[in-house]
Amino acid sequence: MTVEPKDIPVEEIKDLYERGDMEGVKRLLDPLHPTDIAKVLEGLEESQVVGVFRLLDKETASEVLVELEGRLRELLVESISAGELVELIDEMETDDATDIVAELPLEDAKKVLDGIDRKEAIAVQKLLKYADDTAGGKMQAELVKVRADATVRETIEEVRRKGKEVENISNVFVVDAEGRLVGTVSLNKLLLADEELPITSITDTNPMKVTTDVDQEEVARIFQRYDLLSLPVVDKDNHLVGRITIDDVVDVIEEEIFEDFYRMASLNTGERALDSPWKSFGMRSPWLLLNLGTAFISASVVKVFENTIESLVILAVFMPVVAGIGGNAATQTITVMVRGLAFGELELKSARKVLFKEVVVGMANGILVGLFAAMISYLLGANFMIGVLLFLAMTANLMIAGLSGSVIPIVLKWIGADPALASSVFVTTCTDVGGFLTFLGLAATFMKAGLL
Amino acid sequence: MTVEPKDIPVEEIKDLYERGDMEGVKRLLDPLHPTDIAKVLEGLEESQVVGVFRLLDKETASEVLVELEGRLRELLVESISAGELVELIDEMETDDATDIVAELPLEDAKKVLDGIDRKEAIAVQKLLKYADDTAGGKMQAELVKVRADATVRETIEEVRRKGKEVENISNVFVVDAEGRLVGTVSLNKLLLADEELPITSITDTNPMKVTTDVDQEEVARIFQRYDLLSLPVVDKDNHLVGRITIDDVVDVIEEEIFEDFYRMASLNTGERALDSPWKSFGMRSPWLLLNLGTAFISASVVKVFENTIESLVILAVFMPVVAGIGGNAATQTITVMVRGLAFGELELKSARKVLFKEVVVGMANGILVGLFAAMISYLLGANFMIGVLLFLAMTANLMIAGLSGSVIPIVLKWIGADPALASSVFVTTCTDVGGFLTFLGLAATFMKAGLL
Repeated sequence: MTVEPKDIPVEEIKDLYERGDMEGVKRLLDPLHPTDIAKVLEGLEESQVVGVFRLLDKETASEVLVELEGRLRELLVESISAGELVELIDEMETDDATDIVAELPLEDAKKVLDGIDRKEAIAVQKLLKYADDTAGGKMQAELVKVRADATVRETIEEVRRKGKEVENISNVFVVDAEGRLVGTVSLNKLLLADEELPITSITDTNPMKVTTDVDQEEVARIFQRYDLLSLPVVDKDNHLVGRITIDDVVDVIEEEIFEDFYRMASLNTGERALDSPWKSFGMRSPWLLLNLGTAFISASVVKVFENTIESLVILAVFMPVVAGIGGNAATQTITVMVRGLAFGELELKSARKVLFKEVVVGMANGILVGLFAAMISYLLGANFMIGVLLFLAMTANLMIAGLSGSVIPIVLKWIGADPALASSVFVTTCTDVGGFLTFLGLAATFMKAGLL
Repeated sequence: MTVEPKDIPVEEIKDLYERGDMEGVKRLLDPLHPTDIAKVLEGLEESQVVGVFRLLDKETASEVLVELEGRLRELLVESISAGELVELIDEMETDDATDIVAELPLEDAKKVLDGIDRKEAIAVQKLLKYADDTAGGKMQAELVKVRADATVRETIEEVRRKGKEVENISNVFVVDAEGRLVGTVSLNKLLLADEELPITSITDTNPMKVTTDVDQEEVARIFQRYDLLSLPVVDKDNHLVGRITIDDVVDVIEEEIFEDFYRMASLNTGERALDSPWKSFGMRSPWLLLNLGTAFISASVVKVFENTIESLVILAVFMPVVAGIGGNAATQTITVMVRGLAFGELELKSARKVLFKEVVVGMANGILVGLFAAMISYLLGANFMIGVLLFLAMTANLMIAGLSGSVIPIVLKWIGADPALASSVFVTTCTDVGGFLTFLGLAATFMKAGLL
């Protein structure tokens, strides 16, 4: 038995809504988590979304709005009044409020900032300055901090005072008189300590921290590497300006891995499965046109050997086999490389070792797969020498696959680019060219030597 | 400026160790986080690892051992005495202790269980029953629980009492007299509440929970979806048996995504960049042999059209272009599908819509890329009708790419398999066959009609 997230009754809600039974809709929405209510809204017709959203109480509506993305959020923000929006944003944490305000037209943004709680407005205005994919863009202003001369008791009192406004307090931050970060204290430690002690007696004065401009991927790495629950963010003079909590980082980790995934498949990182055909077309076509260019490069290799093929057409039958398997072997290598580099399992200093390894693996697989290919071609009635050709070309091309599949990501990493840019398009070009060149080139040589 | 994780002085430590300066080594290790010390050990020669490990104090050594993986952990566990191992495991949380004990030979495991704290030994023995990739395998026995008749004050006292043993207390669990889960209370709420209130007055009685047998991927989804910090684990009768904390889940999320990645590239999920060539060869070759089989299927299509190619060799030059671009377009589609299905953005009920979309996108891209291909071939001096052929075949094949790239993952999901198994190998076979069949088939038809 598994206890799954509650089933989401989208169809029932649609039915009740169409029948005008708002009480019924409310009853079904009531036990749902805001995340699931957001899912419900995503499943409704656009005309129903606003009506259902209006049934929610202020706190829930605020959380649901945070969970929503793109088109649907826009729709809701446009269809409620500025006054209502102010109320919803007042309920939010500063990082979420900032995300919403950042998407508003300038005039509406001003109205909202004038309307919400003044302290929150100032925090949001500060947060708006930071790029969304940096530590500054991910941090929230809500946190608990005490001066370094506080006692444990005073710190606990401060936690109580802030507890309503600040969620997930796992650490308290200790700052000096100028607001510079002195250290952090975990809530566990705080609860265990003698109340009369000075807070500095239990402060970790060498905590992990980041400046506002650190990339979100780096932030995610730090969380992951050191099993953190929250991380202080400081400005360049070490003034504490915010904190990032683990729940915001989890999505970043997933997002960043999928970006690698997308880059390797030559996709725009913004594309989603339910985008319109038109949007997907626009995002994919530049890559396919690029791929057309590289495909013609491989084709030009075949063109060189037109006469060779003319005198032995069976070569045209087997040539895609050599190229295709090379392509898949190269994809295996790049994928292992991208993972290793992303996890930090693989560092540049091991580059030579890995490169050598991949060529050896390519050779071993080339010999194995090449032998099978030779046997199959022989059983299918091909000339014995065609089998020899297949064996030699496959061994060579799988070594090319191992070499290009490992060198390209390493070089990209080395020059500071994303190793995942070593997309299938580029590495496949290497193995296509390699496959055609070795197979047809050897065939031409064999012919000249009278072996074929 | 970024504040990066402390630089890890592997080379300096190696030098000092070789010169016998153990004090120097200690001085360099001292400020490092256990995660970074583990990194140092990974960078050392095997002969140095044990020596450096022995320099660590018990608590640090215990944490470092938890961070290490595979070969290196084995090496250390083998080279220290049973008594030392007992001391290190005594320091660990039960989930980490279980991971280590599970890897020991039966006899050593018994020795350790006899040696460590009795309560921990019982907990570890219970945890050993669960498969590593389930909620039971990921949970730890350390948690704070109170009976439903406790007051807020008593609960806070219990938190204080357990605070030393239990890390990252974000929730307290409320149970009935039989140990069945009644609900959870967040630490924030607890600190804010009036101390005289009964704990049930602030208990969330409908919390997310999982049973021990729930798959770790599902656990990760729940954490992510509901932004949780910890999750209670219950047995089938709702008895509270453990909790899972977010830091254990972060690695699961990353691991699961990379598994998708690996499956799509036809890789064994256990492979790592620094594995030996021999190991990598063994894990990759079955996939390449499978790929050889599918490649011969595509080759047999070309074989059917041997005569067609013989009378017009330029077809052999352009045929890989049609197949290759189809393969890359299909990879784009599968990648978007796998992401959408993994994130829950895409559900089976949208299958028809997405399928239709992908075919439309394929057609649009086919028309665009096909036009370019026709133009390029014409500029390269090919017959005008070859251009027409390229245009038609590419349009058809990119529609095949969209169809196979979306149908295969959806069907896999529908039958309960992993959509990522729609690896490039299988979908590329569709586009290779599709490319050769449309291009060469149309060419043969054109020839018969006297158009070519």
